[in-house]
Amino acid sequence: MTDAKRVPIGVSARHIHLSQAHVEQLFGTGAQLSEFKALSQPGQFAANETVAVYGPKGSFAKVRILGPARSATQLEVSRTDAFALGLKPPLRESGKIEDTPGIRIVGPAGEVTIEQGVIVAARHIHFHTSDAKKWGIADKQLLKVRVGGERGVIFEQVLARVSDQFALDMHIDTDEGNAAGVATGEFGEIVE
Amino acid sequence: MTDAKRVPIGVSARHIHLSQAHVEQLFGTGAQLSEFKALSQPGQFAANETVAVYGPKGSFAKVRILGPARSATQLEVSRTDAFALGLKPPLRESGKIEDTPGIRIVGPAGEVTIEQGVIVAARHIHFHTSDAKKWGIADKQLLKVRVGGERGVIFEQVLARVSDQFALDMHIDTDEGNAAGVATGEFGEIVE
Repeated sequence: MTDAKRVPIGVSARHIHLSQAHVEQLFGTGAQLSEFKALSQPGQFAANETVAVYGPKGSFAKVRILGPARSATQLEVSRTDAFALGLKPPLRESGKIEDTPGIRIVGPAGEVTIEQGVIVAARHIHFHTSDAKKWGIADKQLLKVRVGGERGVIFEQVLARVSDQFALDMHIDTDEGNAAGVATGEFGEIVE
Repeated sequence: MTDAKRVPIGVSARHIHLSQAHVEQLFGTGAQLSEFKALSQPGQFAANETVAVYGPKGSFAKVRILGPARSATQLEVSRTDAFALGLKPPLRESGKIEDTPGIRIVGPAGEVTIEQGVIVAARHIHFHTSDAKKWGIADKQLLKVRVGGERGVIFEQVLARVSDQFALDMHIDTDEGNAAGVATGEFGEIVE
């Protein structure tokens, strides 16, 4: 018997969330995001649609949009991506975009320049309320998660996010995934 | 009083070591690497010279050469770089290049395609013999090193390399530096 707190890992590539107003500015009046692939969190999906983003130094031609539309547009990049764009976004929890850099976003039907919204996402775990209860974990708690292997690391400062709308999944970005030698679908263990 | 085993960290961007034969193939007969900047390890330097490298999927126009020339040519990239090049190099200690991918290298006076030599460098610490003795660390020992901060991590599988030719320095790549939010000149602590 073991009571290891094993958590599946999802490595997030750069992606963008759009407000419905921006969906329509970029894809045309009345446009809706369409589902390409379901994501681990219930109701969330990778859209068929992509946009281009232009920073002061570099750009990315095809950034995947994650749907559904949100209240505010937010671009999530790795630090490696941020250097390439020429931006210095802070590390933030999703949705906390005050005092973050903006960026120019271009779609097939138009473009928009946001004044803020570019972040490096803080590593976090989505817990369904029942998982959190079983393991004695509170919303907003900071955890340590070990990933083994030839590039083994223990991630500290892993933010717990608990909701009955969530499914158990740890989200890290591509820098973190590459640094730990871990790919989506592999597992980490909460060690503290 | 503290006996914390603090180690300066150097974040290595992609770089290449060349054999003298390849220096001359790429830069001309009799060419020598010239020093741009001294590195932390005695006698090692970043050269003024750069080369372009071409993988099956992508390329990098300016890859810094580290000198002096070595017995075998070796390109060290991050996993992020490897994806961009379209290669799958293994994680290796420097110098262990058997069964690694090759790549095309282009200089101002010629080009060469190596059959092997592309690696992702395994994280490691150079210890001067006196540092290792003081802290009871043996050559080839695997250590754990903690880096704090908002993106704190503990790196496991950190290879100790001990020599009286070395200066104390921990080397990680850009994915690892970005994942830990750490830059060259900052410090880690050996915790095990």
